Amino acid sequence: MFEVIAWDKKTNARLGVLNLPHGKVQTPVFMPVATRAAVKTLSPDELKILGSQIILSNAYHLFLRPGLGIIKKAGGLHDFMSWDKPILTDSGGFQVFSLSEQLKVTGEGVEFSSPVDGSKQILTPKKVVEIQEVLGSDIAMVLDQPVGYPSDEDKAAMAVKRTSYWADLSMRAKNRKDQYLFGIVQGGTYKNLRKKSSEELVAMDFPGYAIGGLSVGEPLDLMHKIASYTADLLPKDKPRYLMGLGSPQDILKAISYGIDMFDCVLPTRMARNGAVFTSKGKLNIKNAKHASDFSPLDNHDCYTCKRFSRAYLRHIYLSNEILAHRLLTIHNLAYILDLVEKAQKAIRLGKLDKLIKET
Amino acid sequence: MFEVIAWDKKTNARLGVLNLPHGKVQTPVFMPVATRAAVKTLSPDELKILGSQIILSNAYHLFLRPGLGIIKKAGGLHDFMSWDKPILTDSGGFQVFSLSEQLKVTGEGVEFSSPVDGSKQILTPKKVVEIQEVLGSDIAMVLDQPVGYPSDEDKAAMAVKRTSYWADLSMRAKNRKDQYLFGIVQGGTYKNLRKKSSEELVAMDFPGYAIGGLSVGEPLDLMHKIASYTADLLPKDKPRYLMGLGSPQDILKAISYGIDMFDCVLPTRMARNGAVFTSKGKLNIKNAKHASDFSPLDNHDCYTCKRFSRAYLRHIYLSNEILAHRLLTIHNLAYILDLVEKAQKAIRLGKLDKLIKET
Repeated sequence: MFEVIAWDKKTNARLGVLNLPHGKVQTPVFMPVATRAAVKTLSPDELKILGSQIILSNAYHLFLRPGLGIIKKAGGLHDFMSWDKPILTDSGGFQVFSLSEQLKVTGEGVEFSSPVDGSKQILTPKKVVEIQEVLGSDIAMVLDQPVGYPSDEDKAAMAVKRTSYWADLSMRAKNRKDQYLFGIVQGGTYKNLRKKSSEELVAMDFPGYAIGGLSVGEPLDLMHKIASYTADLLPKDKPRYLMGLGSPQDILKAISYGIDMFDCVLPTRMARNGAVFTSKGKLNIKNAKHASDFSPLDNHDCYTCKRFSRAYLRHIYLSNEILAHRLLTIHNLAYILDLVEKAQKAIRLGKLDKLIKET
Repeated sequence: MFEVIAWDKKTNARLGVLNLPHGKVQTPVFMPVATRAAVKTLSPDELKILGSQIILSNAYHLFLRPGLGIIKKAGGLHDFMSWDKPILTDSGGFQVFSLSEQLKVTGEGVEFSSPVDGSKQILTPKKVVEIQEVLGSDIAMVLDQPVGYPSDEDKAAMAVKRTSYWADLSMRAKNRKDQYLFGIVQGGTYKNLRKKSSEELVAMDFPGYAIGGLSVGEPLDLMHKIASYTADLLPKDKPRYLMGLGSPQDILKAISYGIDMFDCVLPTRMARNGAVFTSKGKLNIKNAKHASDFSPLDNHDCYTCKRFSRAYLRHIYLSNEILAHRLLTIHNLAYILDLVEKAQKAIRLGKLDKLIKET
């Protein structure tokens, strides 16, 4: 399912291919986030034009709304949202723990009130696998228990224990052959716990591994330290996915220590706040200095840069036109997707370190 | 500038062509509304795919934000918003009178506070012509004074007098050769005043005429009575534009008494409220009965109907996804633009009455 095609000369970065039921995915890869079965502001065709190979959706959110029955009747998530390339569904472990009210966690699973309608819901590892089998995503994620930052070691250890137990239950619940289930390493910012979690999950022989529970408020240095430490503990021949990381610099750095897959709401959320990535750093379109600036956001070949000036984008942003959110989202996703493509080329040429210095 | 190509056999409807600086426009025509230099939620390319021949923007709004200096530097409104087909700019007479605070109207013009920043602004007929010459629209509209409904006859008569005086000043202010300035007939719901206003404006020999001050709360029957009465008073060889009318049935009816041009925010505004036109009447996507309905909104060849089900559209609408607003807007504009195209064909075949009965 995963082949490593080339290794970078100076770093642990690698170029690979994921062979998934809905197509091949070149790695490293950035997955735009379609939490509720839509990437915010964009159509499926725009995502294809941008070069998105795979998108991420969320089992927890879709389970609550529209509900599984509807997506099952639609023939699965691909048909429901009219996207025929690969999809990874997150289990929603992170979302259950961060968005739900009246949370009750037991060894069996999580009981909570739905933020949509207040109804009582129970998610178990088995149920989360079943949900994702109905969704029909190419890659499903196990139900895990993350901890926040800071978190004391006992609490983090307890979460690792539960995450391993749940991972085992998830593995056993699996039925669908045309879907890959990934394990999620937890352990907070404790190296010993990350090691324990990795070893336990690797023993279960998942086809891929995510590093979860990071980017939750810890210092950036510490995040990279823990992520790179954990990446080294995971099998070289399996894909590694660092959940929720999204700034250009952080993605390149994580690629250099051997991460293959990324997702983050940052590019789309920033866009809605008027902020964009450019080759010269971040830029906020609300800034008055762009009022009469007829240059593009960047020298980019995305639709936004090819057709619209900063002055126009600022005007429609300040006029609350939805088109502004769309055009800035297109730009930010194009920027990140292009950057990851550049990283692929750099790995092939053994020049990832140079790209990191220049970005 | 305007040629009538064919007349319907049983009604006063006609098929025509507007020869404008940025291209030819087949009439009857519906103009999507880009008040602030963007059609709500859509990109210029989407408008082209929908078959929009001409769009409407608003001099008053663009004068207040981003301001004329910026659009002048951009090289005019077409370049500013990246739209290379014809544009009609409304003067904003209607908007000044309906949106501004601390309004003071004199013979010379209108003094008001900007709703954008509270600054004191003065618009005169001459200034409004100058603004639109900077914008570089294909068709500009004179500054007029509409009245609300109901309005007593003296007040409506005063507004007609002022509108004629301002129309004359506008005509004299005109400099640009590559732009057509249309007069706007006022007179409220009084036939005698509509007659007076039409005669005075026709005497000034505008290249086209709008019927303004309708769809402001009067009964629909009365609106059509006044509009059709006024249409008959206007030259047969000049284009006629009924401002602000937008339901499918009303547009077809107005085409039958000789109206050539339409604009309305209804299709785009309805879409944002979840309501769409279909061949079987209006439909609201929020309705629970669409939850598991995997049929398209209508049997239409728009992007929305070709690719997405009612169930999906309902889900993303309820999830507050901007994509829902976009897809419903595309559908509604496609519906109206297609309907007007059908009306063109029906006129050619002498069958407009049949189309009206079926819609």
